[in-house]
Amino acid sequence: MSDKNLPNQVSANTLRRLPYYLSYLKTLKNTDVSYISAPVIASELDLNEVQVRKDLAAISSVAGKPKKGFEIDVLINDIQAYIGCDVNNCGILVGAGHLGRALLAYSGFEAYGLNIIAAFDSNPAAVGKDIAGKSVYHTDALLDFCKKTPVTIGIITVPAEDAQEICDLLIKANVKAIWNFAPVKLCTPDGVIIQNENIAASLTIINKKLAEQF
Amino acid sequence: MSDKNLPNQVSANTLRRLPYYLSYLKTLKNTDVSYISAPVIASELDLNEVQVRKDLAAISSVAGKPKKGFEIDVLINDIQAYIGCDVNNCGILVGAGHLGRALLAYSGFEAYGLNIIAAFDSNPAAVGKDIAGKSVYHTDALLDFCKKTPVTIGIITVPAEDAQEICDLLIKANVKAIWNFAPVKLCTPDGVIIQNENIAASLTIINKKLAEQF
Repeated sequence: MSDKNLPNQVSANTLRRLPYYLSYLKTLKNTDVSYISAPVIASELDLNEVQVRKDLAAISSVAGKPKKGFEIDVLINDIQAYIGCDVNNCGILVGAGHLGRALLAYSGFEAYGLNIIAAFDSNPAAVGKDIAGKSVYHTDALLDFCKKTPVTIGIITVPAEDAQEICDLLIKANVKAIWNFAPVKLCTPDGVIIQNENIAASLTIINKKLAEQF
Repeated sequence: MSDKNLPNQVSANTLRRLPYYLSYLKTLKNTDVSYISAPVIASELDLNEVQVRKDLAAISSVAGKPKKGFEIDVLINDIQAYIGCDVNNCGILVGAGHLGRALLAYSGFEAYGLNIIAAFDSNPAAVGKDIAGKSVYHTDALLDFCKKTPVTIGIITVPAEDAQEICDLLIKANVKAIWNFAPVKLCTPDGVIIQNENIAASLTIINKKLAEQF
């Protein structure tokens, strides 16, 4: 996890909200609505209105017009440009278990510039399989693969006890960023971007709301 | 997504960071370290030091001692109590595809008070299966199941196009909260807690850091 301020004073929390704005705004495309106000966005996404205004001001040069609000198409383009939908990052995934397979089959990553080109696993039963059009190779073949095809993002979906070893291997293979789904803190050298994912994190929010409500 | 302020002025962003503090602090248990300072936590988790102090002050009555810092065991207990590790919420999951299976097999939810007791799917090939000790029933049996065993949290891992129908079914079954992994905005009546998960959201952070670095 990294919530330090990022380039251009945009916080990680703002960045994390952008995909939600984007997917909501996209639902309004091809409707007869062409402008939307910050209060409506805030209400639809259960966010604070001031926060919405601040987020959109940070990433879009188009100010909301009084009464009319933001032009939806422009806002969509600005968010897409900002979050790097136009980049093309090659990724590989290590650990073709259920979570790995779910990520391989997930169709939403390309919209964020990530193209997962292959998967790796040390289990012979998984090696040679084709998951959502991506081949699963033996982990032993990872270094050679990355020599031939430079990879930007390494995704770790192996069990916690194997995660550091895989992390070291990915660093040796010169990936620039590691997206870690294993529930363990990894040691990485300076200069390698690490993004830890904790699938259970949202439960803290659900629990608090349940406690408040009942 | 909901980032409105939650009870006791603790933001959803703070709540979302608590699991990361917790898992890091747990790695220090059974070591000879018994106190930890905010700067060390901030550095280890790549967070801002002021943010760490603010987060911990919000959920723990134990102030960090000058020079010594926070007592690790007390902090672990306070975080666990705060995020509801002591609650016991029954959950069911609908959609036993790869993501559903990954969540069923994930061992980390019980630490957050969630006990997934069963799964449902409309695919005959999945019905009757046992995944990580949880039975998969036909979706048609969901209402009857929930009449016999009240369920607090419904987890949606079906494809986007089926998600609203499943959401409506879960609401009919009287779940109190819906944790939605389908990439679609769901309509829910007031009073039902909805937590949307966007697996791709972290990619916006990775992309920005990559753009900054290279």
